[in-house]
Amino acid sequence: MRILKLFAFLGLCIIVGSCNQNENMIAKIYSAASSDTTSYHNLRILCKNYPERLAGTPISIKAIDFLQEIMEKENFDTVYLQECIVKHWDRGEKEIGKAITSKGVELKLNVCALGNSIATPKSGISSEVVEVKSFEELDKLGNDFIKGKIVFFSKAMDSTKVNSFEGYSEVVGFRFSGAAVAARYGAEAVLVRSVTTRLDTFPHTGVMRYNDTIKPIPAFAISTVHANLLSKELAKEPKLKVFLKSDCKFLADEKSYNVIGEVTGSKFPNEVITVGGHLDSWDNTEGAHDDGGGLVQSIDVWRIFKKIGYKPEHTLKVVMFIDEEMNQRGGEKYAELAKLNGEKHIFAIESDAGCDRPIGFSFDLKESYQKQIYSYRKYFEPYGATMFANEGSGVDIEFLKEGHDAVLCALITDPTHYFDYHHSGYDTFERINIDYLNQGSAAMASLIYLVDKYGIK
Amino acid sequence: MRILKLFAFLGLCIIVGSCNQNENMIAKIYSAASSDTTSYHNLRILCKNYPERLAGTPISIKAIDFLQEIMEKENFDTVYLQECIVKHWDRGEKEIGKAITSKGVELKLNVCALGNSIATPKSGISSEVVEVKSFEELDKLGNDFIKGKIVFFSKAMDSTKVNSFEGYSEVVGFRFSGAAVAARYGAEAVLVRSVTTRLDTFPHTGVMRYNDTIKPIPAFAISTVHANLLSKELAKEPKLKVFLKSDCKFLADEKSYNVIGEVTGSKFPNEVITVGGHLDSWDNTEGAHDDGGGLVQSIDVWRIFKKIGYKPEHTLKVVMFIDEEMNQRGGEKYAELAKLNGEKHIFAIESDAGCDRPIGFSFDLKESYQKQIYSYRKYFEPYGATMFANEGSGVDIEFLKEGHDAVLCALITDPTHYFDYHHSGYDTFERINIDYLNQGSAAMASLIYLVDKYGIK
Repeated sequence: MRILKLFAFLGLCIIVGSCNQNENMIAKIYSAASSDTTSYHNLRILCKNYPERLAGTPISIKAIDFLQEIMEKENFDTVYLQECIVKHWDRGEKEIGKAITSKGVELKLNVCALGNSIATPKSGISSEVVEVKSFEELDKLGNDFIKGKIVFFSKAMDSTKVNSFEGYSEVVGFRFSGAAVAARYGAEAVLVRSVTTRLDTFPHTGVMRYNDTIKPIPAFAISTVHANLLSKELAKEPKLKVFLKSDCKFLADEKSYNVIGEVTGSKFPNEVITVGGHLDSWDNTEGAHDDGGGLVQSIDVWRIFKKIGYKPEHTLKVVMFIDEEMNQRGGEKYAELAKLNGEKHIFAIESDAGCDRPIGFSFDLKESYQKQIYSYRKYFEPYGATMFANEGSGVDIEFLKEGHDAVLCALITDPTHYFDYHHSGYDTFERINIDYLNQGSAAMASLIYLVDKYGIK
Repeated sequence: MRILKLFAFLGLCIIVGSCNQNENMIAKIYSAASSDTTSYHNLRILCKNYPERLAGTPISIKAIDFLQEIMEKENFDTVYLQECIVKHWDRGEKEIGKAITSKGVELKLNVCALGNSIATPKSGISSEVVEVKSFEELDKLGNDFIKGKIVFFSKAMDSTKVNSFEGYSEVVGFRFSGAAVAARYGAEAVLVRSVTTRLDTFPHTGVMRYNDTIKPIPAFAISTVHANLLSKELAKEPKLKVFLKSDCKFLADEKSYNVIGEVTGSKFPNEVITVGGHLDSWDNTEGAHDDGGGLVQSIDVWRIFKKIGYKPEHTLKVVMFIDEEMNQRGGEKYAELAKLNGEKHIFAIESDAGCDRPIGFSFDLKESYQKQIYSYRKYFEPYGATMFANEGSGVDIEFLKEGHDAVLCALITDPTHYFDYHHSGYDTFERINIDYLNQGSAAMASLIYLVDKYGIK
């Protein structure tokens, strides 16, 4: 591309004299964010030294210490821990999965227990497999066929969806409820194809739930490569047996903590703006996109304000929530204490959709607030983050919905690759692009600046 | 991120029943594009078998043959070549650059001649260096200081700009006009820091121009790594000499061609919609982002229409333009023949901003058309391509501005990394992401579908 005309199609307002104050301020915010390496560096330490930081684990406590330590360097008015009790689900020994042919050949299958699952018996489960692509298929097969077998939900996530969340939503039900449904028909266990379009050998975990009235059965994720292998083998030999063994269990509940950095508002100290991400990750991953990046981006909001000399008028709380992946005790506790302390929350934003290129925001807000909030879209045009959607906010902050009149918001990033990383060993620091990480910080800081300046009316 | 609510914040309309025909059609377009691998495959062949396809070179003719061949497989009504005469600038032998200290130590500098430059004498140039960061600095130093020296424009492209085109526009003037300005003061040659924020050892080339009234001097790009090295050495030893040698020259003009695939419109055969990219690349690169990707995306528009059974009402011309990088003879010829043949062009779109994630479109259009065109923005919300800007179109298609009442348009993609690749050996097939490549095809096909359906009013 030869650019003789040198058109600066984005950010033109930054150059010409007609810029208004908001555009200038947001240009400053983006500029401050883009030259920064501290958050990227901190994220590397979090990922490499404190991976697999599932709530309740000893390493999650070390991660809490680390986050508190880096926040204490950032001149918040106060940094503190907010205690809450979390369940401690423990994977135990590494799971074993294999397909065993009638000739006795064993094919290794990469599997992992789904979060919240019970274990198999110590001797494992060895059963025939029923492969299905839908719950309807399962219903049709019925008790007699399914009883005593392992149900294998093999439907692949649709890779043709530009919005990967849509593809995800179509199949994640098998992961979440597959065991509860299969148990009704007497299945011994379920094996669920990992919810990703990536062909890899990582099992992608995630939370599952039982139905209280039906006896729980063990639930596993299987990597997409091994799901394909198993389907192929089953086509050749439908009576093939699969062996599954897991050791997961709940240990005693543990004390854990949200980490909070607070800056008191210069004009409205009793009105709160929250920005956060979750500090726990699954226990099979560094949790770089999910959600280490969201943490350092949230801290960045305050770091950027400091850099450009902006003093928030409303109280700013930067929150590292614990236990998002399993039971959201951190988010729940934060909202509970906010209520107890009579806090007025006006705005909360969460970064928990990965750290690829920010493309906009999603909101959970009263219709009467929409006009004001959507009027800010224009400020994000120079930065390509113009998607403003009303499709919900974040898991941790949505507990603030009750008892407050707050606008809740999620940073939305390019979803193309999010489920490549999601809940798997592939979600490492190396998957993070520093430019996009910093742009996410800037997008959140810019929106918070606008909310802080104009309030919510 | 745990997604219990399974909100599909993007593309929601695809699921619910209230979808209208346009939304459905665009969903089909994106779906058809996303499952495709043909264009990615063709791009690999173009990059690996036909790299360095600068206009006038024998390999550019082979690239033309290849493009014609793949287009002929795609059931256009007709595929043909459009002849034009191009200048043939030839780099000749690889350039030599080195810094020579007073102690006789030689430091290799990766340099390359800028496009259109004259060569050094056969024995090279060995001179002291004047390092400047601006034209003003040069003006102040004046004749006496500059005469007989090599002027080194060392200003780095600003890496803090989210819109990299803005950073580019601030320094590309040194590349384009540096030699013309420095020649006024009797400089022997110019050395221009590569216009990229990436620290690498590739010189990034690009076109330059002389001022007809002043004697031309050789112009070189130097890699960013070696520009830093040279600055450091000059700080230690200002009288350091630099040796530069180049062998570039113009060979005889050559016949070359635009490659055009045409589908006659079912309702308006005399009204034309053009989609294209440029088939030439710089002679130091595979030209994957610039602009091999734009070519396969343009062919894709028709491939997608075929797949979903859409028959354009207006005549569709898919054009691979020759000679964009140097003299735009292809674009000029295309417009000239359109005029000569009395064609009516209503819309033209070019993909030549790289193949990263599409974020929207830039237009060159009459104010009266803006309302209609901008009303299409909503259809791109599910796909995160909502930037609609009035900041110009593409170098090849802008020749259509005269004599037509057409809307001209450029596909805009994530600019973050574009200048990492730009005009250098780093712009290889490996830098291409298939998902983003396909999304670019879909974005163009969707906009063309809307223009084709409603016309330009």
